[in-house]
Amino acid sequence: MNSVKIFSGTSNHLLATNIASHLNKELGKVRISRFKSGEIYVHFEESVRNQDVFIIQTLGHPVNENLMELLIMVDAARRASAKSISAVIPYFAYGRQEKKDAPREPITAKMIVDLLSTVGVSRVVTLDLHAPAIQGFFNIPVDHLSALQLISDHILQCNIQNPIIVSPDAGRAKMAEKLATLLDAPFAIMLKKRPQHNAAKVTHIIGEVTDHTPIIIEDMIDTGGTIISVVEGLQEKGAKPAYICATHPLFSDNAAQKLLHPGIEEVVVTDSIAFENLSDSFKVLSVAPLLSDAIKIIITGGSISTLFRSDSG
Amino acid sequence: MNSVKIFSGTSNHLLATNIASHLNKELGKVRISRFKSGEIYVHFEESVRNQDVFIIQTLGHPVNENLMELLIMVDAARRASAKSISAVIPYFAYGRQEKKDAPREPITAKMIVDLLSTVGVSRVVTLDLHAPAIQGFFNIPVDHLSALQLISDHILQCNIQNPIIVSPDAGRAKMAEKLATLLDAPFAIMLKKRPQHNAAKVTHIIGEVTDHTPIIIEDMIDTGGTIISVVEGLQEKGAKPAYICATHPLFSDNAAQKLLHPGIEEVVVTDSIAFENLSDSFKVLSVAPLLSDAIKIIITGGSISTLFRSDSG
Amino acid sequence: MNSVKIFSGTSNHLLATNIASHLNKELGKVRISRFKSGEIYVHFEESVRNQDVFIIQTLGHPVNENLMELLIMVDAARRASAKSISAVIPYFAYGRQEKKDAPREPITAKMIVDLLSTVGVSRVVTLDLHAPAIQGFFNIPVDHLSALQLISDHILQCNIQNPIIVSPDAGRAKMAEKLATLLDAPFAIMLKKRPQHNAAKVTHIIGEVTDHTPIIIEDMIDTGGTIISVVEGLQEKGAKPAYICATHPLFSDNAAQKLLHPGIEEVVVTDSIAFENLSDSFKVLSVAPLLSDAIKIIITGGSISTLFRSDSG
Amino acid sequence: MNSVKIFSGTSNHLLATNIASHLNKELGKVRISRFKSGEIYVHFEESVRNQDVFIIQTLGHPVNENLMELLIMVDAARRASAKSISAVIPYFAYGRQEKKDAPREPITAKMIVDLLSTVGVSRVVTLDLHAPAIQGFFNIPVDHLSALQLISDHILQCNIQNPIIVSPDAGRAKMAEKLATLLDAPFAIMLKKRPQHNAAKVTHIIGEVTDHTPIIIEDMIDTGGTIISVVEGLQEKGAKPAYICATHPLFSDNAAQKLLHPGIEEVVVTDSIAFENLSDSFKVLSVAPLLSDAIKIIITGGSISTLFRSDSG
Amino acid sequence: MNSVKIFSGTSNHLLATNIASHLNKELGKVRISRFKSGEIYVHFEESVRNQDVFIIQTLGHPVNENLMELLIMVDAARRASAKSISAVIPYFAYGRQEKKDAPREPITAKMIVDLLSTVGVSRVVTLDLHAPAIQGFFNIPVDHLSALQLISDHILQCNIQNPIIVSPDAGRAKMAEKLATLLDAPFAIMLKKRPQHNAAKVTHIIGEVTDHTPIIIEDMIDTGGTIISVVEGLQEKGAKPAYICATHPLFSDNAAQKLLHPGIEEVVVTDSIAFENLSDSFKVLSVAPLLSDAIKIIITGGSISTLFRSDSG
Amino acid sequence: MNSVKIFSGTSNHLLATNIASHLNKELGKVRISRFKSGEIYVHFEESVRNQDVFIIQTLGHPVNENLMELLIMVDAARRASAKSISAVIPYFAYGRQEKKDAPREPITAKMIVDLLSTVGVSRVVTLDLHAPAIQGFFNIPVDHLSALQLISDHILQCNIQNPIIVSPDAGRAKMAEKLATLLDAPFAIMLKKRPQHNAAKVTHIIGEVTDHTPIIIEDMIDTGGTIISVVEGLQEKGAKPAYICATHPLFSDNAAQKLLHPGIEEVVVTDSIAFENLSDSFKVLSVAPLLSDAIKIIITGGSISTLFRSDSG
Repeated sequence: MNSVKIFSGTSNHLLATNIASHLNKELGKVRISRFKSGEIYVHFEESVRNQDVFIIQTLGHPVNENLMELLIMVDAARRASAKSISAVIPYFAYGRQEKKDAPREPITAKMIVDLLSTVGVSRVVTLDLHAPAIQGFFNIPVDHLSALQLISDHILQCNIQNPIIVSPDAGRAKMAEKLATLLDAPFAIMLKKRPQHNAAKVTHIIGEVTDHTPIIIEDMIDTGGTIISVVEGLQEKGAKPAYICATHPLFSDNAAQKLLHPGIEEVVVTDSIAFENLSDSFKVLSVAPLLSDAIKIIITGGSISTLFRSDSG
Repeated sequence: MNSVKIFSGTSNHLLATNIASHLNKELGKVRISRFKSGEIYVHFEESVRNQDVFIIQTLGHPVNENLMELLIMVDAARRASAKSISAVIPYFAYGRQEKKDAPREPITAKMIVDLLSTVGVSRVVTLDLHAPAIQGFFNIPVDHLSALQLISDHILQCNIQNPIIVSPDAGRAKMAEKLATLLDAPFAIMLKKRPQHNAAKVTHIIGEVTDHTPIIIEDMIDTGGTIISVVEGLQEKGAKPAYICATHPLFSDNAAQKLLHPGIEEVVVTDSIAFENLSDSFKVLSVAPLLSDAIKIIITGGSISTLFRSDSG
Repeated sequence: MNSVKIFSGTSNHLLATNIASHLNKELGKVRISRFKSGEIYVHFEESVRNQDVFIIQTLGHPVNENLMELLIMVDAARRASAKSISAVIPYFAYGRQEKKDAPREPITAKMIVDLLSTVGVSRVVTLDLHAPAIQGFFNIPVDHLSALQLISDHILQCNIQNPIIVSPDAGRAKMAEKLATLLDAPFAIMLKKRPQHNAAKVTHIIGEVTDHTPIIIEDMIDTGGTIISVVEGLQEKGAKPAYICATHPLFSDNAAQKLLHPGIEEVVVTDSIAFENLSDSFKVLSVAPLLSDAIKIIITGGSISTLFRSDSG
Repeated sequence: MNSVKIFSGTSNHLLATNIASHLNKELGKVRISRFKSGEIYVHFEESVRNQDVFIIQTLGHPVNENLMELLIMVDAARRASAKSISAVIPYFAYGRQEKKDAPREPITAKMIVDLLSTVGVSRVVTLDLHAPAIQGFFNIPVDHLSALQLISDHILQCNIQNPIIVSPDAGRAKMAEKLATLLDAPFAIMLKKRPQHNAAKVTHIIGEVTDHTPIIIEDMIDTGGTIISVVEGLQEKGAKPAYICATHPLFSDNAAQKLLHPGIEEVVVTDSIAFENLSDSFKVLSVAPLLSDAIKIIITGGSISTLFRSDSG
Repeated sequence: MNSVKIFSGTSNHLLATNIASHLNKELGKVRISRFKSGEIYVHFEESVRNQDVFIIQTLGHPVNENLMELLIMVDAARRASAKSISAVIPYFAYGRQEKKDAPREPITAKMIVDLLSTVGVSRVVTLDLHAPAIQGFFNIPVDHLSALQLISDHILQCNIQNPIIVSPDAGRAKMAEKLATLLDAPFAIMLKKRPQHNAAKVTHIIGEVTDHTPIIIEDMIDTGGTIISVVEGLQEKGAKPAYICATHPLFSDNAAQKLLHPGIEEVVVTDSIAFENLSDSFKVLSVAPLLSDAIKIIITGGSISTLFRSDSG
Repeated sequence: MNSVKIFSGTSNHLLATNIASHLNKELGKVRISRFKSGEIYVHFEESVRNQDVFIIQTLGHPVNENLMELLIMVDAARRASAKSISAVIPYFAYGRQEKKDAPREPITAKMIVDLLSTVGVSRVVTLDLHAPAIQGFFNIPVDHLSALQLISDHILQCNIQNPIIVSPDAGRAKMAEKLATLLDAPFAIMLKKRPQHNAAKVTHIIGEVTDHTPIIIEDMIDTGGTIISVVEGLQEKGAKPAYICATHPLFSDNAAQKLLHPGIEEVVVTDSIAFENLSDSFKVLSVAPLLSDAIKIIITGGSISTLFRSDSG
């Protein structure tokens, strides 16, 4: 562990401190500032020569600034002769732009992967990618971890009566199926169907939810809009207040406010992205132990399979 | 169109001939043979210098042989000074190995994409990839077409009473949702849940299928095993004989035989992979018009959006 | 010119419109928006297949957002089968981070060049790079234009009595020397010397400035701080109010306000970066004719040497 | 040696076991299987993180399957964070397609080298390449060993009276010359000449063979056809039964049967490719010691020159 | 042909002029000079924007200077926006370092190929490579021509009585065999054998040469040392004065002088490398028609097979 | 330090020996020779397998030969399985061709950087690059050292009365400013202005030089022509004999002779390039300690900032 140095970008300093602390290390010293021109300046204030450098930077708000900061940190570390550079990216942004849904769109998730490779990242550690195939965008090794077990363990402790796992849309069905298996619970799915002769989208629930406590599972909460409309659909069908589970609390706009909703019992997220916790109904599970364990295994060798996202759906 | 030449690998010569014919062209002359050593030999028997070369090769059985043949054809065309080389791959194999489901697995779909780029493919045209994110594996342009509209049009002509779209598992839910929208039909989903204390997998159907005619939608039919078990599950629930729809008739093992099943009314596939049609209950829709239209647009410019897989899910 | 399409990012739409207009073309239609998550979305709303695409995006405020927007536009254009993609970047940001001034710094200018190459830019057109060697950072062709002739022509029309060209620091001496040659005027240079036993920086003027009208030449005006201190140093030495010439009005912070200074007669800049013109003492020369001429030559062939930054110094 | 793991593909498991055994190691556990679809599945069943991985896979029958298997193994090892991946390829296939003999042919040997580099092979160990210049196809280090010394030692022990080294064609003359030097024996060469006015190829022997025991040297035996025609040509000239020496017993078709020929005294090959030994007249020399010595030197450093193919001709 | 420009390096200006003249073109204007520092300066004095540029530079003496000149010309042309850059390299140097004959040697021929690709060469046209596998070193298209037909035609016109083709060593046997076929002549081969107990190398001739006129075939003549020792060996065996045929008159040291030898009747070479022709016994065949035909086909398309080195041995 | 081997090219063997000696090592054995053909041959005569190889080669006269020698050494070391290859290039040639001063010029400095990367250099150590931005041409780590402190220390010991730092042209002003700061001395600058209506170039001195001892600072001395004209300009203005300081004594043509000039008191250079020291008025400072310290830090880790060119101007 002597040849290892851990640095933090500015996006989630607390998480980085916790990860370092789990590894009995202090964060390395790096100066990150912005000129009046808006240009980012990075200066590593201690040697990284021949070191295995880990840079922890999550891609929450403001996403483009955080990404550029990460890229510039990597450039500086590479030019300063780091032996290897691992980017620890708890939340990987642009994951929803991982394919073209229409012609002449970008595939921005792939582009970001290419940018990371270009500047010299030698490995990535990340958590619950929006689409597991994003792993394949990389040619460098990726350790793709999951907070699903963490979430599942927490839900089990809640002793929920009559639970039902709800996939908020067809695309999330596989992740929901996995949680249903972990919790041995029944399953429902929301569908958005837009009949061709009718502009309005109609939402259907397939599965029996009345009098059940829905556990809605997502990889991230963005504006919260989809979640609220799912919750309201469930309420209409006679469901009880729901548990909302998501790894990444992106919380754009006033999402956190929106989630203080009578149809929601608890919002379970992780600290993969920093946010101001407004209420007791938000439960934040820390991924610092998970990420520090991954780093330990990366350095000392051995199998990461216990941390692996075996459910990668 | 004068600078365009179309060549066929050995995997689906009939489809290639039909594509060329739609373009009012003849297939270019290429000799493809195998030495006694098993090594593949390729010789273009007409000049491809400064030509836009299209090589049509699907990756059905035997997949590794067909892939190597394609790679070697591309190598020969590149060294013979082709101006551009487009690989038309109606069925893109290894699409199910597009992510790691366990540690220390390959991501073979990405590897194949890298092999194609390495040998000099400048563009790919393909059909209904198993996972749409495979588009992002490429840095070269990919035209990703879909046979879903073709299939949907055929099903509409069948005038099925009381239809219900069935997703055979959680991972296919989005594709099924799309077909449900196109056909304005209800939706059901099969789930495989393995309770932790119980080794046996239990299959559930979510949605009401009794007395409905199920339309099961898949991107491909491999051994047919999953299909048969879905069909039997539906039969038990009182469903009528089903329509099976899939773009790619991979038909491994004795799949075609297995699909001659009383619970199956019709099997609708395309000619993306060649197979011996055993029965009237197999309906083969040709993708030759779709692929030749795409080639025409690639050459003459314009928008491919009418052919685009807008459902890419 | 039929196979050419010109698109604009959001950073300087007016300049892009003017460039297109000089080429008797309309800007191509592209949708650029930001999700609530801060992620940028790009969609070309007309076909770019087989087209020579020019994307005009300057890297003024907010620099990182503008850069990411450009990268994503290029990614979308490449995947949409553009024949070539030229990035027209009137102001190239991060030019001052073109070397390491201390160990463990990045060379961000090079990094950005690499990012542009990675996403698929096939050519760059730019204007008065902070350091001419940045041209060499590219392996793709770069057309490096200069507004110096434009500025020099304007200054000549001003009929300034007793002019003296002033280089605001040692690093700009070569550019100032070139302007002195164009205007056949004498020359002075400001030096910042920090004696080792003395923390305070002392500024010296070398050359005779009393009763002269200084013409201070810079590639860009950032916060205006250096300019103001140079102007005040000149005032102390008995110089008349100065002309400030710079290609790029970056105008960070309240730079534009600061430049409304009694020691400044006129501020001559170009429209390489959009800014709100506050005063008659700001003269804005348009680079639209220069950039559109360059594009014309790129398309139709011929020599760009009349537009070339022959002073690149 | 602790950070080293040795894995075997399915092509020559016995040789791999012997190599590992010479290194006092056991083969690492890897699952290699084929789905019904023909797709290969690979799963390393022990950690390779930070390990120097050696993958032993010869490219005998079926060549394309064996190659794909190797590529997929490398992909999996790289994604599983192996520190380095050495491909030990005793017989490198497609070596005869190392140049174009006609326009519009591939150079498949180079293509395979590029595929190996693409998937992440960091070093290759191989034996008696068909053309030594194939070494230059690689940019990664290649250890090119030779079994010629092994063969020469064996022949010396045979105490052959009146030996004459025979090159079966002009292209093999240099290798034969080398063996002639090692054995201090005279030399003859077979030529195939096709007079322009005569379709039939005429074979000439240059050199005196009557009453000599020919020692025919080749890098590999494929179908055995050339060998048999050379043997029969020698018999006609009054030569005694011949010794056939070749590193690689590719033995396509019924080659092994064909070589049970009265004009052949002994066939000397190595175990670079597995085959069923039909007769006492086949002498198999093991290259396991040679390859394991090379691996030892690769790991511990030092010079491989004693094992080097100094004759590489 | 309008978009084509042909430039010459300084190594063989006469050949370049002849090639251009065969194409009814004038050489493009380029300034190539050397500073006192020894650094090469290149400036294209006419636009190459969007042009198909051919640069003709042979790699005779001084080889490293000529190579650097070529690389720098390509760099300048690429940065000046040439559409494509073809390097016409009649004699490709370092061809004898195409493999390692001992450990820790370079493979310089491959390195040069990589340098050419790095600077941006899009195609190579060359003549009688020392080893045909050097074609495979390139991933860009290579047109590999041969002067063998030219030489063979000339020899036929000489009406030589009792000719015998002589390969000067084992490595050239295949090329000699090919000429023997073209001329329908018998064949002999020189061997250098160094018995292990004897330091002195002994040269053997295999084949009957007495009273024959030897035609010795080589790809190039370097110092002429080997040729002279072969000629003297042939004289001792009673052969008549020989014809020496080689594509490339490298003529290092005083080779041309040495070849004015009583055992030599005529030396047949091409103008692939410029040299001062000292004597009537030197016959120089021009490759300008061959190279200009190749350029014509490259530009206008079609098959180069009539010019192709079908003998590439 | 056990895994480190240091080799010298032929360009400055004495410096290399001194560097090795400072590291308590002997130079590794490598054979470097030239064939009569002018081709360079390299053979490492000891194993470099798994070693960190440093190759010391300066790019003085003859520059192209020295560069090719370096490239070929790197190729050989890479193919011989060196673990890393650091090129120590005290004088980096072609630094003045780091940008285009006119269209259709090369950027040869970048090209050389690309060649070094292509052959496999993993790190560069160099000294006082002509333009600091050349650092950015590399994507591999570069340790850019400076002899300015060495020169400044020497000048301080000379106890010069009334010194004035003179920048010989506008482009060197920043380096001169830095030396002025180190020595706490005044500053003057020479300008070359070419009025547009007048072909003759007029040289101006800005700053007061009469009765001062000029200290002229340059990165290198090439032909000495500029230096002599600056010296003579200073003499005319009543300056005393000057000190000439430059890191790199390239000394083209008869530069060393020219510098024996009455207007020159002393010429201070380093041994970055070997030259024959003709006179006591040449002071040669050794950079061997500086370079060996850098190598030590590269191997053992730690910060190179004390050696860093903090003035990089």
